[in-house]
Amino acid sequence: MPEPQKEEFVVTPWKVEGKIDYDRLREQFGTSVLDESLLERLRGLLGRPLHPLLERRIYFSHRDLPWVLDEYGRGNHFAMYTGRGPSGDVHLGHLTPFEFCSYLQEKLHVDMWVQMTDDEKFLFKKDLSLEEANKLGMENLLDLLAPGFDPKRTHVLLDTVSIRTLYPISLEVAKRVTFSTAKAVFGFTHQNNIGSIYYTAMQAAPAFLPSKLKGHPVPCLIPCGIDQDPHFRVARDLAESLGYPKPAMLYNILLPSLQGEGKMSSSAEAKDSAIFLGDQPGDVKRKLSRAFTGGRTTVAEQRKLGAVPEVCSVWSMWRSRFAPDPKEFEEITRTCRSGELLCGECKARLIPKVQKFLEEHRKRRESVRAWLPKVIVDGPLAGKVE
Amino acid sequence: MPEPQKEEFVVTPWKVEGKIDYDRLREQFGTSVLDESLLERLRGLLGRPLHPLLERRIYFSHRDLPWVLDEYGRGNHFAMYTGRGPSGDVHLGHLTPFEFCSYLQEKLHVDMWVQMTDDEKFLFKKDLSLEEANKLGMENLLDLLAPGFDPKRTHVLLDTVSIRTLYPISLEVAKRVTFSTAKAVFGFTHQNNIGSIYYTAMQAAPAFLPSKLKGHPVPCLIPCGIDQDPHFRVARDLAESLGYPKPAMLYNILLPSLQGEGKMSSSAEAKDSAIFLGDQPGDVKRKLSRAFTGGRTTVAEQRKLGAVPEVCSVWSMWRSRFAPDPKEFEEITRTCRSGELLCGECKARLIPKVQKFLEEHRKRRESVRAWLPKVIVDGPLAGKVE
Repeated sequence: MPEPQKEEFVVTPWKVEGKIDYDRLREQFGTSVLDESLLERLRGLLGRPLHPLLERRIYFSHRDLPWVLDEYGRGNHFAMYTGRGPSGDVHLGHLTPFEFCSYLQEKLHVDMWVQMTDDEKFLFKKDLSLEEANKLGMENLLDLLAPGFDPKRTHVLLDTVSIRTLYPISLEVAKRVTFSTAKAVFGFTHQNNIGSIYYTAMQAAPAFLPSKLKGHPVPCLIPCGIDQDPHFRVARDLAESLGYPKPAMLYNILLPSLQGEGKMSSSAEAKDSAIFLGDQPGDVKRKLSRAFTGGRTTVAEQRKLGAVPEVCSVWSMWRSRFAPDPKEFEEITRTCRSGELLCGECKARLIPKVQKFLEEHRKRRESVRAWLPKVIVDGPLAGKVE
Repeated sequence: MPEPQKEEFVVTPWKVEGKIDYDRLREQFGTSVLDESLLERLRGLLGRPLHPLLERRIYFSHRDLPWVLDEYGRGNHFAMYTGRGPSGDVHLGHLTPFEFCSYLQEKLHVDMWVQMTDDEKFLFKKDLSLEEANKLGMENLLDLLAPGFDPKRTHVLLDTVSIRTLYPISLEVAKRVTFSTAKAVFGFTHQNNIGSIYYTAMQAAPAFLPSKLKGHPVPCLIPCGIDQDPHFRVARDLAESLGYPKPAMLYNILLPSLQGEGKMSSSAEAKDSAIFLGDQPGDVKRKLSRAFTGGRTTVAEQRKLGAVPEVCSVWSMWRSRFAPDPKEFEEITRTCRSGELLCGECKARLIPKVQKFLEEHRKRRESVRAWLPKVIVDGPLAGKVE
């Protein structure tokens, strides 16, 4: 495998660019490795093998996961929290934390909190109206809850709707974050709008909500992309001064762009970088046929040298979701590396699986419509959540 | 009358210090004079004489009042909006905008919006909890609504409770205000917390709410202390870009401290600077007996030169509230200036009036309890206000 180049990359909650070196990023952010001993502890709790997202190290880093497991062992169950800023298209990468939370909820029957940040998208996106952001939020929620959640244990915070519950906690956070801190953590300038500057307090709020509602410290585990770490560094820094436990983090790598650099993106310029959940079979075929791989320039060379799965956007899809069977995944990886499996064959094998997944996803998505309105928090929440 | 000295003064929404020169302040802020021709126009609308707060120029400056009156003449009634940050003690000065709005509502049957900014007080006051700020807000509302309002036309926005209605509009405002602007207008530094930086968007929101609810431009008239002008300069600057009319302003001077400098204050160090609405007869007697006046150092000198009502904290109380009869007020002012009325006599005459006012105020305050909960906006408001 070629030595990874020390290229420049940028990872913030609002911008991911370049070829990401996740080990360097983890060191830079100061997060811990999700190592084999911790995975073994998770196998004891969740059964073996673990979900592919864990076994294959798509979740690769954490903060305070052992403490969450200690508390769980003592009967103090954690709440999960993850979220998303609504956008025009939800792609496969956006599903990762939700699929993962769905798995954890099924195994451990824990509460799930989903934040849909229509306020954030409105504040950071020049031409988006608040009404559009709110509508997109509702649409996105159908997709993100499709992996399957227990409606009795799932609570949706759609920021502009759930603000009665979120605002008081966000104020507690905001009082303890100076502009100086926000500037240092997020790189804000004097030209940022005051809403974008406040926003991190809104993203921190759900991490403290379970403790506030229950009146005792409830561990909160946040599975999300590592690009969100800056928000939660701020939240963790002040948690104890507010009387809440620090939220624990479980970070996934970002699904790489089909075009070979950065992460899958739903921005207009990069429509072919990602498989969107609304893509039709023809879109899937076109995008995957053209996708960036770890193959060689000629068939002969590939047969001789083998391909490099670690840099391949197609392999990353097998890794995350489309080869749940460990034997199948091992076979794909081995034959790719050996040169037996050519990229064209590999793509031809993946395309129908992705097409089928999307078809089934859309059925699951429709089934969410019936219960989504019932789980959106609207009004004061105290006393409504057990 | 002695030439007013060009002393330094500071007037911001969070700090009022020094001897305020209202003409200089008006020029500095760029607000218009509430001149005789405009008062005459108001007399035509409201009847003569006008409320003492107008006739005696306690309301002394405005922005766009003629436009509000033009619109009213065309049948487009304005909404009134004023507010307050809750505090431990409400004093007579805090009542001024509410007494004035009560008068306008009685005369013109217009809608009244009251904002109680528990969030602001929490964010700007180091040791105040949000729960305390919220409780103080509820208590303060009893006082501020005591002058008499029509419950059917009165809506209370208690920020942390009414946030579902306020937040979306505050976001619209916040998106258009940069940190640079907030810094320039309010003098923020990098050490200000991000909640305090956002806050101006919350104070602007009620000015646009009537238009948003009715779906067409509704003029909003904001009677308040001129120290609040910075907030509304920001709101006015961006109103049109949001599709709302600029709020019109009517500014009162601040009731001077009984101790002779700055305004009445409810801060702990200045308890004797103000008559609080909860003061007992003994407190009133003590504070007024010691109050700073425009009298001379000896009786002989005062008999000879007369006193200076314009600098006298006792005279300012006659002016604002305790001599509603124009003849009585004229007589007090004339005999003060001539030296006939000595400060001791004047105070002895005022003390029982203030004591009685407070006693009656407390009865009116209790009568607000019955209807206050019904007018606090909680939840989405669209469709609930005619």
